[in-house]
Amino acid sequence: MRVVIIGAGAAGLKAACRIRRRDESAEILVIDKEKEISLSRCSLPYYIAGLIKRDELFKTAFDVLRDKAFFKSSKNIEIIDCALAEDIDRKRKKVKINKDGSIEELDYDFLVIATGAKPVIPNIKGINSYGVFCLYSAKDADEIIKRLKETETVVIIGAGFIGLECCDAFFEHGVDIILVELTDKVLPTLLDYELAKFVESNLKSMGIQLFTKSRVDEIISKDGEVCAVKINNNVVKCQMVLLATGFTPNVELAKKANLEIGKTGAIKVNSLLQTSDPNIYAGGDCVECKCLITGSEIYIPSGSIANMHGRVIGNNITGLKTEFKGVLRSLILKVFDLTVGAIGLNEETAKSLGYDTISAIATFPSDKSHIYPERRPIVLKIVVDKNTKRVLGVQAVGPGASDKKLDVFASIIHSKMSIDDLMDIDFAYAPPYSPAINHVNTMGYIVDNKLRGFLRTIHPIELKRKLESDDDFIILDLRTDAEVKLNRIDDRRCIHIPFEKFRQDFHKIQNLSKEKEIILICSTGYRSYDVLEYLTSNGFKNVRSLEGGFYLFKAFTR
Amino acid sequence: MRVVIIGAGAAGLKAACRIRRRDESAEILVIDKEKEISLSRCSLPYYIAGLIKRDELFKTAFDVLRDKAFFKSSKNIEIIDCALAEDIDRKRKKVKINKDGSIEELDYDFLVIATGAKPVIPNIKGINSYGVFCLYSAKDADEIIKRLKETETVVIIGAGFIGLECCDAFFEHGVDIILVELTDKVLPTLLDYELAKFVESNLKSMGIQLFTKSRVDEIISKDGEVCAVKINNNVVKCQMVLLATGFTPNVELAKKANLEIGKTGAIKVNSLLQTSDPNIYAGGDCVECKCLITGSEIYIPSGSIANMHGRVIGNNITGLKTEFKGVLRSLILKVFDLTVGAIGLNEETAKSLGYDTISAIATFPSDKSHIYPERRPIVLKIVVDKNTKRVLGVQAVGPGASDKKLDVFASIIHSKMSIDDLMDIDFAYAPPYSPAINHVNTMGYIVDNKLRGFLRTIHPIELKRKLESDDDFIILDLRTDAEVKLNRIDDRRCIHIPFEKFRQDFHKIQNLSKEKEIILICSTGYRSYDVLEYLTSNGFKNVRSLEGGFYLFKAFTR
Repeated sequence: MRVVIIGAGAAGLKAACRIRRRDESAEILVIDKEKEISLSRCSLPYYIAGLIKRDELFKTAFDVLRDKAFFKSSKNIEIIDCALAEDIDRKRKKVKINKDGSIEELDYDFLVIATGAKPVIPNIKGINSYGVFCLYSAKDADEIIKRLKETETVVIIGAGFIGLECCDAFFEHGVDIILVELTDKVLPTLLDYELAKFVESNLKSMGIQLFTKSRVDEIISKDGEVCAVKINNNVVKCQMVLLATGFTPNVELAKKANLEIGKTGAIKVNSLLQTSDPNIYAGGDCVECKCLITGSEIYIPSGSIANMHGRVIGNNITGLKTEFKGVLRSLILKVFDLTVGAIGLNEETAKSLGYDTISAIATFPSDKSHIYPERRPIVLKIVVDKNTKRVLGVQAVGPGASDKKLDVFASIIHSKMSIDDLMDIDFAYAPPYSPAINHVNTMGYIVDNKLRGFLRTIHPIELKRKLESDDDFIILDLRTDAEVKLNRIDDRRCIHIPFEKFRQDFHKIQNLSKEKEIILICSTGYRSYDVLEYLTSNGFKNVRSLEGGFYLFKAFTR
Repeated sequence: MRVVIIGAGAAGLKAACRIRRRDESAEILVIDKEKEISLSRCSLPYYIAGLIKRDELFKTAFDVLRDKAFFKSSKNIEIIDCALAEDIDRKRKKVKINKDGSIEELDYDFLVIATGAKPVIPNIKGINSYGVFCLYSAKDADEIIKRLKETETVVIIGAGFIGLECCDAFFEHGVDIILVELTDKVLPTLLDYELAKFVESNLKSMGIQLFTKSRVDEIISKDGEVCAVKINNNVVKCQMVLLATGFTPNVELAKKANLEIGKTGAIKVNSLLQTSDPNIYAGGDCVECKCLITGSEIYIPSGSIANMHGRVIGNNITGLKTEFKGVLRSLILKVFDLTVGAIGLNEETAKSLGYDTISAIATFPSDKSHIYPERRPIVLKIVVDKNTKRVLGVQAVGPGASDKKLDVFASIIHSKMSIDDLMDIDFAYAPPYSPAINHVNTMGYIVDNKLRGFLRTIHPIELKRKLESDDDFIILDLRTDAEVKLNRIDDRRCIHIPFEKFRQDFHKIQNLSKEKEIILICSTGYRSYDVLEYLTSNGFKNVRSLEGGFYLFKAFTR
């Protein structure tokens, strides 16, 4: 059996290795247009930041270079580098490759298309000036590092995950960073508005100049080199531009071979990862995947999914029928001190897809026990289908270890758990690892309390609007004197009564009209909920607690 | 409605708070025999270690003391401290309490027994000498800290989680530590043998003297103070002894009231957490819980379960019917640089309960991407029901962030997932958080490969035995030259051929008999698996790969 694989990235090489493990006699050829293969592409921002050495980008976990010779000697996998696959003759089962101008035809029994993706190049005047980069290859990163040394100001176009990871990486080089985003928030497809604003607040505190709802109209160059950009028609000096406007699948070869392309624009595959030609498989960043929550096809390039695809393809080609079930839209990134990520649907996406949702935002003062050293806060938002109580998605932002929560939620969403399950899971508790009441259980409690009508909340966006209005309402700030001293709420409608003195000081508000709108604020939401019950029991009819507490609100409104 | 709660620990106070949240008019009395209430008991080792201040042990997340006045003023919960509940008159629904010798009877509509647990005091001669401590209250910790200042050598009896957490805590005081354990390993109910040995190796490297299969026969004192112990009939000087031999539920009051006690010796409750008297609830460390894996009752005291119990009891008393489903036997602890924990059944327990199990041990060189800075290894062991492929349990040891893996497995085991699901979950990947192929997916792959007969392994215990024997076999060490240089396998039967040169150097072993027993070793198991397939394809009939790789093995045999 001869298998030809086009693309020596995660999906292609994983397929090659899996085929070899399952079949020593298979002939395996991997074609790649680059000289350097098996790049840890997701690590490029950390290479730029100086956290990872260049050769590590191509190394195994046992510190050996994953080059052509390695694949030959350790796995008998033939790498044909610097070669372009130009055409597939499906009838004759041949691939035409072009290596340095010499054309060769390779026979295959099975073909694997793992051509990956390429950066989207926006249509901007002056885009071909020197100093304008994408980040896709190690060479791109080399050029960026070199250019950063001569750069005072860099403009990053696009505030998706590459854009934000590069804010962090470029920051290490001491440059001024201007981040320009077309939509109204960073990470537009990942996060709901209020959490995106939390991230933006952090970016701004690091000195990043952020322009949302903005557009780079032109890249201006001098002697062929970038010297400025026009942002919203204002000229801004800069010496470098990074295009971080997303990726698009490499489907030219598949199209040319008349393989079916999906609605997303990526190659369509069945659950065995076969294309419309059963002898041709495809995987990694060039294919679309089924979303396990909605059941519909989406395009979501990912290094971990590419590896999964490779294994599934390897199994199927060697006769071990294996399905790739689908994805949960899982994404995570580190940007400065924040961990930011999401699993499943955010609320905006879920609503746009027609789900009747209920959501909850919770701020946790600590990822560990609330008294354990080096604890850090995390903010979680959960989105639930109101009818089935099934968890549709979760988002996390904050300096604390929310990566742990995200992966727990991946399991929860994968197994289609409802809110009732969330409240019951027995997680492992010790003070260095978790509060005694686990965050995930708490998310279940909060949604349950909301669904039962015990907890009535105001969303931070609504509170912001109210504060900017002349509305007649009362804010009850329940934080301690020490907390208030650090961050006062400057509004005439705000009354401060610390939670721990609330019952004795209740007389201060007892004479308010029972119809008066009251908004309860504490740092996280915990104290507000207690007082909400108390006020409601005392006949107040219009009391709500602020979702996510003051911790989220202050960042959100900054 | 009047609710009397006996015990102002996690379960009792959580029940009180939940009742107050649900019913402002309820009269809530909480009785405790101590002056100091609401202790973060699990934090005592960190207080001893100097990581947490004493007052923090009693503080809320918003830095306010959780004392009697706090509960009164913020929640209108009456704490009756320094009072002992002596008797329950179930017919008249009254509790007799004794406060400083004055007896009072309290009426109740509902009673909650949350009397917690107490340390098991082993029957050892001399146990009443000064310098012998348990660790249960803040006062115990105070005394221990004081005594540590005058101590050169401390003997800890019992290598359960308190014993190990105290090794770490006492170490900070610069004392010599002798740890004595009756069984053949540390953490005897938590870990299987080989993982326990890994932990022991770490303890020894920190200078802890460990005696397993050992017993303290006598505590010898001078002028009433500990001066030595007899361990296995040898006299060993010491100035302090910690009894860390487990906990036993406080059931005296329940027994006296003729409430049903379970087979485990703890109070029996139904899923609503009612005792055999429906007006009396019980929760926390004084009750037994259903294990969600086996369906049988177990006794497993835990701060997080106590909190869950409190909430369930609070709901049920206020008319919101809520079940406590059960526990997964989740446990985690930090001991020096290691995170150690388990969810569900370990292999020894599963086998003793009659499960037909298959297990897999995997060493992961990194908790993050294998090239990201500050990565640390983790070792996972998974136990699976061979017939249903359902995951029964997981254990984790190592310096890496395995707490994350444990909580993911809590969700997995809770939802009764099989190995097939493990392979499919789409976790969130970025280099600072995970390898591109997630550890949990990999555990699924390994078990699947074993179940299909692709991967044949040797358990480290068996290899150790073989190395100590005169057996005729070959060890193929596939590690790099650099790895071997650091840790050589000194055995005449060992041949070193680095993985990356394996195919070209195959001739070195090509002439071996195809029946020859060959054991493949690399650092983690990854390379061994590749070569296993190669040798099998080349006709070798008796090849196995070492489970957990050399990383586990070297610690295990140290």
